[in-house]
Amino acid sequence: MKNFFNVMTIEQVLDLADRFAPVGEEIVDLNEARQRVLAQDIASTENIPGFSRSIVDGFAVTANSTFGASEQNPVYLEVVGALTMGTAPTQKVSSGQAMHIPTGAMLPKGADSAVMVEYTENLDEQTIEVYRSVAPGQNVIQADEDIQAGQPVFTQGTRLRPQEVGLLAAMGMNRVPVHRQPTVGIISTGDEIIDLTRTPQPGQVRDVNSHTLAAFVAADGCRPVYHGIADDNIETLQTVCQKALSTSDVVILSGGASVGMRDLTVEVLASLQDSELMVHGVSISPGKPTILARSGNRVIWGLPGHVTSAMVVYAIMVRPFLAHLSGLKEVMVNTPTLTATLSRNLPSAHGRVDYIRVRLVEENGHWTAEPVLGKSGLIRTMVEADGLVAIDKDTEGFFEGDPVPVIPV
Amino acid sequence: MKNFFNVMTIEQVLDLADRFAPVGEEIVDLNEARQRVLAQDIASTENIPGFSRSIVDGFAVTANSTFGASEQNPVYLEVVGALTMGTAPTQKVSSGQAMHIPTGAMLPKGADSAVMVEYTENLDEQTIEVYRSVAPGQNVIQADEDIQAGQPVFTQGTRLRPQEVGLLAAMGMNRVPVHRQPTVGIISTGDEIIDLTRTPQPGQVRDVNSHTLAAFVAADGCRPVYHGIADDNIETLQTVCQKALSTSDVVILSGGASVGMRDLTVEVLASLQDSELMVHGVSISPGKPTILARSGNRVIWGLPGHVTSAMVVYAIMVRPFLAHLSGLKEVMVNTPTLTATLSRNLPSAHGRVDYIRVRLVEENGHWTAEPVLGKSGLIRTMVEADGLVAIDKDTEGFFEGDPVPVIPV
Repeated sequence: MKNFFNVMTIEQVLDLADRFAPVGEEIVDLNEARQRVLAQDIASTENIPGFSRSIVDGFAVTANSTFGASEQNPVYLEVVGALTMGTAPTQKVSSGQAMHIPTGAMLPKGADSAVMVEYTENLDEQTIEVYRSVAPGQNVIQADEDIQAGQPVFTQGTRLRPQEVGLLAAMGMNRVPVHRQPTVGIISTGDEIIDLTRTPQPGQVRDVNSHTLAAFVAADGCRPVYHGIADDNIETLQTVCQKALSTSDVVILSGGASVGMRDLTVEVLASLQDSELMVHGVSISPGKPTILARSGNRVIWGLPGHVTSAMVVYAIMVRPFLAHLSGLKEVMVNTPTLTATLSRNLPSAHGRVDYIRVRLVEENGHWTAEPVLGKSGLIRTMVEADGLVAIDKDTEGFFEGDPVPVIPV
Repeated sequence: MKNFFNVMTIEQVLDLADRFAPVGEEIVDLNEARQRVLAQDIASTENIPGFSRSIVDGFAVTANSTFGASEQNPVYLEVVGALTMGTAPTQKVSSGQAMHIPTGAMLPKGADSAVMVEYTENLDEQTIEVYRSVAPGQNVIQADEDIQAGQPVFTQGTRLRPQEVGLLAAMGMNRVPVHRQPTVGIISTGDEIIDLTRTPQPGQVRDVNSHTLAAFVAADGCRPVYHGIADDNIETLQTVCQKALSTSDVVILSGGASVGMRDLTVEVLASLQDSELMVHGVSISPGKPTILARSGNRVIWGLPGHVTSAMVVYAIMVRPFLAHLSGLKEVMVNTPTLTATLSRNLPSAHGRVDYIRVRLVEENGHWTAEPVLGKSGLIRTMVEADGLVAIDKDTEGFFEGDPVPVIPV
């Protein structure tokens, strides 16, 4: 096992993601495809909508029949039939003629546009007056206006939102090639940690990290698998780690806030097959004692035991890693989505990135970020927080009133 | 069936949500509780962590033993033992004494603080030098510092994020009372609409709205149920509607962009048991021909057939309705999360709210909103869009360079 014991920057850690390949492909039903990541480029084999459609209720016409029409000088057209939804027209429309058309119906041969019913009047059963001219193509969607046959529609690595699902439906793609969801094994460590169903005795605390991290993993479109609580014991931890690795793409260990426990974790990781300790300490606060290792092509994270530290490390480093493994093309993770005004001064130490939990308060469309105070061992500080503000390692902090980007949590 | 045929404002439509009660309660396992909405207030029955814990590796001491300690004048303490994780200390610490303590372990009787190991030195097996004084409580989390027994922790109507799941785990709540997820029946209407597995003949298009809307409904934490495609035929539509209503809290019909189809939909809704047409037309663009009705205490939406119009109506009106039915306390829906600079002028008509699809482009942390042009019948315009910009009914639009709030889609 190779070791690098220098504290690394967040960027150096994130760059290591490229050493792992995204997970493989599977085919899912379209109704299960939401939030999944496309594993292939998708082109359309058809024009969409595939025929010229009216987008108004009115009359299909040849535009040149209507040229010059106005309230003062209406144009008279012969009504030669009525179109129905869902069927191909059997008749054609010639210059000087019109055909009733409902919104969405197919244009008949000869027609190149549609006049809105509001700009017409029935003179008799066979004749309408038209008060406004239309241009060729007006009020019509062309056969290939939405999508052209052969046109690239989506690229591999796209996360499917509802509207992408809709467009896949339009293309008739009932089965969708997506990356499978990375399986993430979750292990809590520590002699003081007990299952949440048990009543803690003095000195014991319930397992919080497994449940918090599993929920984050699921929210990020991966599959969390619980592997329970491992004692501070090299054999137990080895056994649990090996079991988790055999069925996971990623294993997240958390706990071991004490120096002894961290050393034990490193020892266990070193004992795994084809292992490499890639990160041992990151210039981030909270979260400095973060460990990243691999065993073969599996990723192993060792997160701090304090739940708030574990959450910050998850949000800032584990999440982008999982996004990469999920096959996401652009790792649009932690892009600040909101700028808020800081409610108080935030001093910071040089040489590391500080992540400050903040509460967001809105007034008249303007957001204020109020730092949440309290020790990083307190779970409620993460519950009270709506986001994180990063203080860069080269700055000494922010002043009250500064605009700050907020990473939602 | 009562009718109101005036076009209503978006606010008037949203106010109608209060006429429907949120759905009932169910109990779920904590591991299934993410994203669910609490159905009860939650108080803690215990102090958390339940005992005083060290948050550093070092020595448990009585703070007054360290007063005055400095590099020049260290204090000497007698080491009387070592604490282990997860067990209650059996010995006490008196003034002038210290006990080894790892991070997270329980403080022994007599100790009120912890000295970091970095500020100590071992003189011999039984003696340490301390170079810095600590205050009472320093480097310690008190027994009730995270949560006090009896303290209200969460209120009914809270959406559970991963960190709330974590705090529920800390309280030992393996079973969580949540609102059940509203069931939303989805029906597409129109003779031209065919199932996505079929090949469209001229005049036919595949069902896009069912799949798009089902994905939105699922993303918002509700349960979509497909009820297929109903022909433009009063008996078929009645049958499908009644079936959907019998198993749903909400039914969403879409399609029927033509006037004839809209009239048919209204006729069918009027024929349902204990029905009331609540909204027939909204001052919104796109989406004016929106219908809202009830049958007993079930909600029925009639959305426009154009997929982009249906999506806008969903995002602006259906989503907050579903949030209310889901039991959410604060309907924090469509709160703009980002302000962008508009890339071009956007004129708008008075008297209605216009929703403009925009693409978001980031450069150096600054966001530009580029309007997506194209007819509202084109699916790809929603795929190209990252958000919606609202132009209020009392303004004539925005100018290039204006800051605009963007509602994500």
